[in-house]
Amino acid sequence: MKHILSREIPDYIEGYGSVKPFQGTFSDIGAKTRTAVKLTSVMPNQQKVILNLEEALDKLNIMDGMTVSFHHHLRNGDFVLNKVLETLAARGVRDLTVAASSIFPIHAPLVKHIENGVVTGLVSNYISGPVAEAVSKGKLKKPAIMQTHGGRARAIESGDLHIDVAFLAAPTADTYGNINGVYGKAACGSLGYAVADAEYADKTVAVTDHLVPYPASPIEISQAFIDYVVEIDSIGDPKGIVSGTTRITKNPVALIIAKRAAEVIKASGLVQDGMSFQTGAGGTSLAVAAELKKIMQQEGVVGSFASGGITGYLVEMLEEGLFRTLFDVQCFDLKAIESYRDNPTHQFMSASMYGNPHTKGAVVNNLDIMILGATEIDTNFNVNVTTGSDGVIMGGSGGHSDTAAGAKLAIVVTNLMKARLPIIKDKVMTITTPGESIDVVVTERGIAVNPRRVDLLEKLKTTRLPLMTINELKRLAETMTGVPKTIETSEEIVAVVEYRDGSIIDVVRKVK
Amino acid sequence: MKHILSREIPDYIEGYGSVKPFQGTFSDIGAKTRTAVKLTSVMPNQQKVILNLEEALDKLNIMDGMTVSFHHHLRNGDFVLNKVLETLAARGVRDLTVAASSIFPIHAPLVKHIENGVVTGLVSNYISGPVAEAVSKGKLKKPAIMQTHGGRARAIESGDLHIDVAFLAAPTADTYGNINGVYGKAACGSLGYAVADAEYADKTVAVTDHLVPYPASPIEISQAFIDYVVEIDSIGDPKGIVSGTTRITKNPVALIIAKRAAEVIKASGLVQDGMSFQTGAGGTSLAVAAELKKIMQQEGVVGSFASGGITGYLVEMLEEGLFRTLFDVQCFDLKAIESYRDNPTHQFMSASMYGNPHTKGAVVNNLDIMILGATEIDTNFNVNVTTGSDGVIMGGSGGHSDTAAGAKLAIVVTNLMKARLPIIKDKVMTITTPGESIDVVVTERGIAVNPRRVDLLEKLKTTRLPLMTINELKRLAETMTGVPKTIETSEEIVAVVEYRDGSIIDVVRKVK
Repeated sequence: MKHILSREIPDYIEGYGSVKPFQGTFSDIGAKTRTAVKLTSVMPNQQKVILNLEEALDKLNIMDGMTVSFHHHLRNGDFVLNKVLETLAARGVRDLTVAASSIFPIHAPLVKHIENGVVTGLVSNYISGPVAEAVSKGKLKKPAIMQTHGGRARAIESGDLHIDVAFLAAPTADTYGNINGVYGKAACGSLGYAVADAEYADKTVAVTDHLVPYPASPIEISQAFIDYVVEIDSIGDPKGIVSGTTRITKNPVALIIAKRAAEVIKASGLVQDGMSFQTGAGGTSLAVAAELKKIMQQEGVVGSFASGGITGYLVEMLEEGLFRTLFDVQCFDLKAIESYRDNPTHQFMSASMYGNPHTKGAVVNNLDIMILGATEIDTNFNVNVTTGSDGVIMGGSGGHSDTAAGAKLAIVVTNLMKARLPIIKDKVMTITTPGESIDVVVTERGIAVNPRRVDLLEKLKTTRLPLMTINELKRLAETMTGVPKTIETSEEIVAVVEYRDGSIIDVVRKVK
Repeated sequence: MKHILSREIPDYIEGYGSVKPFQGTFSDIGAKTRTAVKLTSVMPNQQKVILNLEEALDKLNIMDGMTVSFHHHLRNGDFVLNKVLETLAARGVRDLTVAASSIFPIHAPLVKHIENGVVTGLVSNYISGPVAEAVSKGKLKKPAIMQTHGGRARAIESGDLHIDVAFLAAPTADTYGNINGVYGKAACGSLGYAVADAEYADKTVAVTDHLVPYPASPIEISQAFIDYVVEIDSIGDPKGIVSGTTRITKNPVALIIAKRAAEVIKASGLVQDGMSFQTGAGGTSLAVAAELKKIMQQEGVVGSFASGGITGYLVEMLEEGLFRTLFDVQCFDLKAIESYRDNPTHQFMSASMYGNPHTKGAVVNNLDIMILGATEIDTNFNVNVTTGSDGVIMGGSGGHSDTAAGAKLAIVVTNLMKARLPIIKDKVMTITTPGESIDVVVTERGIAVNPRRVDLLEKLKTTRLPLMTINELKRLAETMTGVPKTIETSEEIVAVVEYRDGSIIDVVRKVK
């Protein structure tokens, strides 16, 4: 048994292997290796365009036990993962591992393939919907491996996650495999999460519904990395790919939280020229951006960059001169796609450049302020965004752990209670992000600073913000909600939570 | 002894190793490997900016026998190679191999380092000026290795050319190592030749005279690949980096050649929508572009791309709608730099994407028409652009062999005689590009089609172009110049000419 942040994890997990325990956010650094890559050279006059998915699969010689990968830029509008797996299942292939950067409700047909043994392994940074439920119920033969966005790029580049065939959904592809995400009916913008797959998979197939003459322009992923191009009718449903606009919350409690978070940021002293900022696309997160914007405008501050998944709101801040640049790993809305397409200061970043801890420096390393969400937080500031209060998988780290580790100020914004349950607990169901990389928790009732951040605490004491210890905050919630019942789990491990460096930070057990 | 295109090459060359003989343009294809890369991960708060070159060298721990690399985007204005080697020499380091994508007259101080044993190896795609003369005189301890632009990227990516430290001249660098070539006083545009060095060297140093706050925009080479950033006073002399404008020749003979070359192109049937084209920056080459432009305009043809080193003339053709895009590995003039900076259809390509034969398809694979120069051509169409008529090194392949191999129609344009010497000979001093990839030779007195291209010959027979066999063309020149004397060489090998796939196509011997 390994003891990880007071969890007991077996030394060896069946279907996963030996456990390398989490030992601190930056314990695994220094000399690293990007792995060698096998490829087959392509000669002049050789064609890459394949008639259909079936013919592509003939050429690819996909065998039982292989790993096939997918990116999630088409989000809940993605047709590619389902179509490819359906075609593979029809061929009788079994025991596949699906390495998909994220899984959404649209991927429900994957449950059937899991039940039938077509798919027995799943590696992903975020799993929601029916597949998450199926994994939680123990339907997948091997434990799912839940990574972070930066950790997935690290795993692929290091060779820890070997991909036999990458299927790259391509909103635009030319006949020689140059790809972009900015044109076509399934336009999604940045293809940041697809880069490592394209560069390191043994074989790569661009799957597109917008085949253009050579050469495409712009090029996000180069012909040098693509073996085949397949045109299909539709790679995705635009309605599920991007929202029209992302909106700031109107919920009064969320607005209070946002205002307080902005005051914490101001008091931290980080609001200065050259500052950098990241937040998610959720209503409360965007509300923090709106509050921060006011402060930046008042103080005449110009930031260096905002990063991550990009929303129209951050585009506006760029256009208003509040940031010099954006680093975009995925576009959340149409405005972001248009800006990414047209504005050269709205820059591309791959998942590796974004958050891989084993490069010569990821963008998260330069992040000042990060706004994070949480499903649960424990009194050591460990955060769960992997499982719900019922113990069932409903998400995963995505960039949570990557940005928390890199940012100078990682702020969790959350209601103190959700659905009559307290958010702060002695023990969270699953540790996604270690408390050592969380600096402060902001709720509508009080603000708790991680005791490791004595400097921040001193600064906040000069404000009128309602500071409490995390235990006080927990007790405050419990006076209103009572102490929630512990969720009973069996011993069976249904998912392994990998920290960004590939160590195990926790496991998810089957709910009883 | 190996017999290569009727040359005799030893099986083993001292200071180089075993000889893998050239066996045809596409004989070495199929399963290939991009090599693994060692790196040291960079943590948040770690600084990359180093005070000066000396401190950088302290950190890099450069030892005797190592390989240091440089790119040639600053051309004959480059200060970086000289400064770095001067600093290394002052530290007493010896036996270095310099892997510089090209060497120009400005690199004359390298001769001293060669004479002193500081530098004993040289790997380059193009060597001109005093260093070329020194190599030809046998001053370098080991034979120089002369590669092609695509072959260099191949060698680096495959691990054949292992770089210990890459020094990357950076017209603009930010404090975390993001680099571009479009801003700064030494702006040179595309940094295509620097990419493989950045990605595959053990250690990388960006050397800049324009250090900007994080993050730079645009980013051509990412922070993920850069260990250190050093600011120096000046990385180069703008006058040597780019010409103000590149001009079409006014020489009447050259204009005749250009006109005939354009007629060959027209007759080939390749002037059609989607056509692609590449030419060098020389006056005759540009004159071919001008003639081709007229034909394209007359026929209302829109090409897909022009590629290679880009000149203002090709930019004009892009802007006039004659090509949809440009692929730019280096900018030859200011107009090209501005276009590359501002026009998204003027696209970047790395040397690997440009011409590496061991990728999933280089841009040269899609090239229809390529205009090439020649110092000498033999009656088997083998071309020499490596040594002059005196047997002394004065250039090298650059992209010559890469584009000739890829293009559907590779045309050599040349005067039939230069300085009273015939260009076509029974035997060239050095084979740079194999005759099998040359389709036609166009001179002011006659046009010779490679007999392998029966199809092309048939098409040209329907025109009034002055067709001859290559032997007829040779004899025609010799009636005017006489048969030139053969240059006497010793047995000593001063340079090895590597074909793009890493095989040996010829050697350069010391002139007596």
